[in-house]
Formats: sequence, C-alpha cells, structure tokens
Amino acid sequence: KQIKLAVIAGDGIGKEVVPEALRVLDVVAEIHGGLKFSSTYHPWSSEYYVQHGEMMPKDGLSHLTQSDAIFLGAVGDSSLVADHISLGGLLLKIRREFEQVINIRPAKQLKGIVSPLGNPQNFDIMIVRENSEGEYSSIGGRVHSGEDEIVIQNAVFTKKGVSRVINYAFELAQKRSSHVTSATKSNGIVHSMPFWDEVFKEVAGNYGDVQTNSEHIDALSAFFITKPQTLDVVVASNLFGDILSDIGAAIMGSIGIAPSGNINLNGKYPSMFEPVHGSAPDIFGKGIANPVGQIWTAKMMLDHLGEHEMGRILLDAIEESMQSGIKTADIGGNSSTSEVTDEIIHKLRNK
Amino acid sequence: KQIKLAVIAGDGIGKEVVPEALRVLDVVAEIHGGLKFSSTYHPWSSEYYVQHGEMMPKDGLSHLTQSDAIFLGAVGDSSLVADHISLGGLLLKIRREFEQVINIRPAKQLKGIVSPLGNPQNFDIMIVRENSEGEYSSIGGRVHSGEDEIVIQNAVFTKKGVSRVINYAFELAQKRSSHVTSATKSNGIVHSMPFWDEVFKEVAGNYGDVQTNSEHIDALSAFFITKPQTLDVVVASNLFGDILSDIGAAIMGSIGIAPSGNINLNGKYPSMFEPVHGSAPDIFGKGIANPVGQIWTAKMMLDHLGEHEMGRILLDAIEESMQSGIKTADIGGNSSTSEVTDEIIHKLRNK
Ligand SMILES: CC(C)[C@H](C(=O)O)[C@@H](O)C(=O)O
Ligand SMILES: CC(C)[C@H](C(=O)O)[C@@H](O)C(=O)O
Repeated sequence: KQIKLAVIAGDGIGKEVVPEALRVLDVVAEIHGGLKFSSTYHPWSSEYYVQHGEMMPKDGLSHLTQSDAIFLGAVGDSSLVADHISLGGLLLKIRREFEQVINIRPAKQLKGIVSPLGNPQNFDIMIVRENSEGEYSSIGGRVHSGEDEIVIQNAVFTKKGVSRVINYAFELAQKRSSHVTSATKSNGIVHSMPFWDEVFKEVAGNYGDVQTNSEHIDALSAFFITKPQTLDVVVASNLFGDILSDIGAAIMGSIGIAPSGNINLNGKYPSMFEPVHGSAPDIFGKGIANPVGQIWTAKMMLDHLGEHEMGRILLDAIEESMQSGIKTADIGGNSSTSEVTDEIIHKLRNK
Repeated sequence: KQIKLAVIAGDGIGKEVVPEALRVLDVVAEIHGGLKFSSTYHPWSSEYYVQHGEMMPKDGLSHLTQSDAIFLGAVGDSSLVADHISLGGLLLKIRREFEQVINIRPAKQLKGIVSPLGNPQNFDIMIVRENSEGEYSSIGGRVHSGEDEIVIQNAVFTKKGVSRVINYAFELAQKRSSHVTSATKSNGIVHSMPFWDEVFKEVAGNYGDVQTNSEHIDALSAFFITKPQTLDVVVASNLFGDILSDIGAAIMGSIGIAPSGNINLNGKYPSMFEPVHGSAPDIFGKGIANPVGQIWTAKMMLDHLGEHEMGRILLDAIEESMQSGIKTADIGGNSSTSEVTDEIIHKLRNK
C-alpha cells in the first residue's frame, strides 16, 4: 500500500521535527512490510513569503489534493511576517478550503511523562473541536475612530456546522468510554451558546447509550486541572476547543507533545495532521525541540489512514522511550531532538 | 466610620457563606474599633423569582445606590429558574447598570492550601477582566430554521471600554511587580483582538516603567499551569477573564476560595464583591461549603473601602487558619463551614 504524503515543515522547529517524524514513519513502513510512504515536500513558510510575497503559490492547494494526507509542522515567524498573514495564508487557509471541519486533539497522559498535576492521573480525553466557523469567522469591522472607535466581531454558528461536530463527538464516544461533555457558556453568551446547547441536546437524543453533560467553559477549564480523569470526549466550539487543547497539552506535561488532526469528512480533500505546538522560533536550530508532538501526530495520521495496528505500536514505542528517560528538556530530560527520535526508532524495531 | 453594606446572599451556598463572612466582618469592626458595618439584607434570589416572577423588585437597584458596597453570595438555581434569567436579572444586571466595568480576581497561592500543581508555587496573579462589553454583548440573533439555521453572536469592543480596563491594569501593576500580560487571540479572531492589541500597545506607551507581554489565550491558559509564577497582572476581555479566573481558582486549590470585585470607576454607583464560585445547589444545606471564598471577598471589599490594614490582617488570619488544618473537604480537610469561620475569627482575635 502506497501512501502519498504532502509534507509542509513550515517554520521554526517545524523544520526540525518534521524530518524526525518522517524518519520514524520510514521505520513504521519497514516494520509493516506492505506499507510505503511517498512524500512530496512543499517549502511553504514565512521564509517562502519573504521570497515570494505569499505563503504558498496561487495554485498551491491544487498540489495537495492528490495526497492521502497532509503532514504539517508549524507555521508562523513574526520576525518575518505578521502572524495573521502567515497563519491565514497557509494553516487556516488549508483548514478552511479543504473543509477540515473537525479538529481532534487528545489530552492523554503518556507513560513516562510527569504531569504538572502529579502522577498518575490517568486521564484520557479526546477534544473534538469545531474547526471551520464559530468565533473564528472573519466577519466584522470597525466604525468611528480615535476615542469613539467601536469594533464588532461576529461569531457565526450554523446548524450544519454545530450538529456535524457534535455528531462526530458522539460517534467517537461510542468507540471510547461513551461519555460526551459539551463546552458551553450559555449563561453569559446568550445567542450562540444557547443554540449550541439546543443542538447538543437534539443530537444527544439519537445516542441514548452515551452519557452526557454540559459545562460552562470557565468551569470546564478548571475541571481539566481538578478532575481530568472524569472526562472522555469533550466537544467544543472553535475558540473553546483551541483553549481546552492547550490546557490539555499543559496537563500532559508539555505543549511539545500534543498532536492534532484536522479532519475532512466529505472525502473531497485530504485531512491534515499537525502538532498543537507552534514554530517556537526562539528555540529553533538548537536541537532541543521535542519531536514527540510531531511523532504522536504521525500516529494519529496512521490511525486516520486505517493503520491502527501500526498506530498502536508507535504510541507504545513513544511511551517506552519516555519511560527509559530519553526526553527533551521541556519534559525534564536532557536529550536532543534526534536522540529522542533514535530511541523511539530503537523501541519500534524491538517490537 | 460607618460602612453601609447592601447584602444579597442569593441562592444555594450563598445563603450559607454570606452570614459566615458577615460574622467575620463584625469581628474586624470590633478589632478596628472605629469601624462599623450596617447591613441591609435583600432576599433577591431564584426563590424570590418563584414568588414574585422577577429576580428583584422593579425599583430594586435604587435600594442599592446608597450603600458603600454590595456584598453578594451566589446567584442561580436552575431547578427553580433558568440560569440566563436568574443571572441576567440580578448578577449581570447589577454589573451593567451600576457600571461595574472592571472585574478583579486574584489567583494567589494561599499558605496552607495545596495547589494541584504542588507546593510551593508562589504565584500571585491579579486578573483584571473587562466586565461590561466584549463577547458578552446581547446583540445577535437567528435566521432560518431547522437544518438551515444560522446564529450570529456579536462581540462588541469599544475604545473606551478596552482602554479603560487596560489602563486600570497598568495602574495596578505599578503598585505590584510592574508587569502586565495581555490576553489576546489576534491570530484567530481577526477584528476584535487586533484592536485589543493596538489599544494595549497604545496604553503601554504611557507606562514606560511597566513591562509587558501579549499572549494568545490558548497559550496563556497553559502558562497558568506550567509557569504561573511568571505572571503578575493579567488583563483580559470579558470571556477570556472569565476563563482565566476559573483556571486561577483551580491552581489555587479550589474554586471555593477565589474572591472577586466588580468595580465601578466613576463613583456613581457602588462596587460589588462576590466569590468566583457559584451557588452549588448540590451541596447546599450540608454545612460543607468553603467559606474562604466569601471571606477573602470581604478582604477585597475592605481594601476597596480603604481599610488596607484590616484587609491584610484578615488575609493573614485566613492563611493561618488554613495552615492549622481547619479546612473544608474541597481543599482536603474535614471541617464544616462554621468551624472554618470560627477558626478564622479565632486567629483574627489573636492578632
Ligand atoms: C455566571 C456567569 C454569567 C459569570 C460570568 O461569566 O461572568 C460567572 O462565570 C462569573 O465569572 O462571574
Ligand atoms: C495559530 C492559531 C490560529 C491556531 C488556532 O487557534 O486554531 C492554533 O492556536 C491552533 O490551535 O492550531
């Protein structure tokens, strides 16, 4: 089986961790036997912007459509180009144009990594984030200027978008511990959030076997700290999912380990996999970036491509490596990016 | 000095912890000698709604205007009345009509209380939350129905509102460690948040002695877990401040201990002090509610009324009580609400 990957390393540490994860994927292919990855590399990044005045060529997206998945590092280097341009022109553009309407982000405690909450917490949360609308709408603008300036920002929630992400969460919950928590704020945000609650209730009615609860985003954020082990699938709007997934990364032990998948549901376009961390230009080039986020992201991609067995083995290898103490500084070790990758490959070969 | 308090215990555990905090305030007055509190009690609550069809009388607000401060417990009991009605008709109504445009919420580790992050973390953050506009605007609505339904929610940010809260944060920072962190999300929310950033930059220009940084709300939420001791004053929009303050309460050890003040700046109306926790109807009547949130709220009110020395003594007494192990179950003790209050009063008398 040949898997076509479109690879965009992007900026900063994306350029360090993506090659490491590809090394791991080559070993996965080798172990599997019948699997082969063929990668097409796209140099789209903030540096590309400096040279070409755009984050990707005009026909850039058309180069990605034939791939089975997009494997992304990180985008953004504000010393070269403003974030809203780099992100809007590459990351958010692909998410939107390729209708990657769902963003899935696990917050699961890995063996061998100490949570700031202490060990063992045994939480295993899957955040299902709406990825196409809500608070991230580009609708809005300004009126007056100076001391009178007023800015309106519209959040747009559609029945289609909200029910789609909530349905996805319930389908997922059925394969897990059968519990869905909805992130709301209907006590303070009085149009969009009561609507979200209504749709949640409606969809829940079709999944009588799944337990549910609704929590306001403020309280839910606190629960990620005080009782994360009580959560299973958490479904959230674009903004709330964004916030919860960074909190999830923090309780896992480092933003450097958290993976994510941007899922296209209608089969028209490839899905895209990227770590939750950013490009961290400040640590770029030092060989200290944690490759686990990108490698765990590769595991999510394997799952998505139907290679669950290889995904399982890869996560095991990551956990065994962490347990052996070969870790980067952000999670309390003193190994380099490539040493961590080497160890994961070593564990993988011994499976 | 006579201090007129308007007291609204509200719902659930508000009815338990408010009388406890008033007991403490009486002792404060006694110790001070020259201080006297005269309280007017208002029974406005969800029960009041059941009897009268409204959360407070039509002329309710006029009964509060003559007070020096409003001392509130908690509002909301969804078994009696929907949250958006109880909150909108009492809590949010007072915040808005009385132009309590700033909400201040400390996240400070108290001696004797174990943070879920481990001890000692030594963080001491003051969250300054915009309290009147932003994401909590009531503007918005729905179009179409069924599968085509679309809901628009408007967030409204004004130059006046944003610069006011940011100025407040800088003034406060000058009295503390001279650092302000701004919560933004301008990489994803492209109208309101870049405006917020602009105003922040403009105001910062007037406070050359104060250090600043801007963090996206997702990353900042994680920093509350991974490096809270690096934060001093954090200024945030209505929604972001709401979320951060619950995270702040969680890292302090319990939502049951966090206080807050809703500050009126123009002197036209009283300010209102309330704990961050809600009415928790599920634990009401068991005598296990943590009174520390309400008592620490009384300390904030004392500071606001210019009684800094008494405020300092009261916080010391709270910390000493916690260190002596007399705590409610939410923070690992087995004492009752009144036992904790008694101990705080005992420590207070020994000062
Ligand atoms: C009850 C709710 C409307 C309120 C808010 O979001 O402001 C509460 O969460 C708070 O933080 O005081
Ligand atoms: C970079 C930013 C626009 C993005 C988002 O908020 O979606 C990031 O925080 C993420 O979570 O992938």
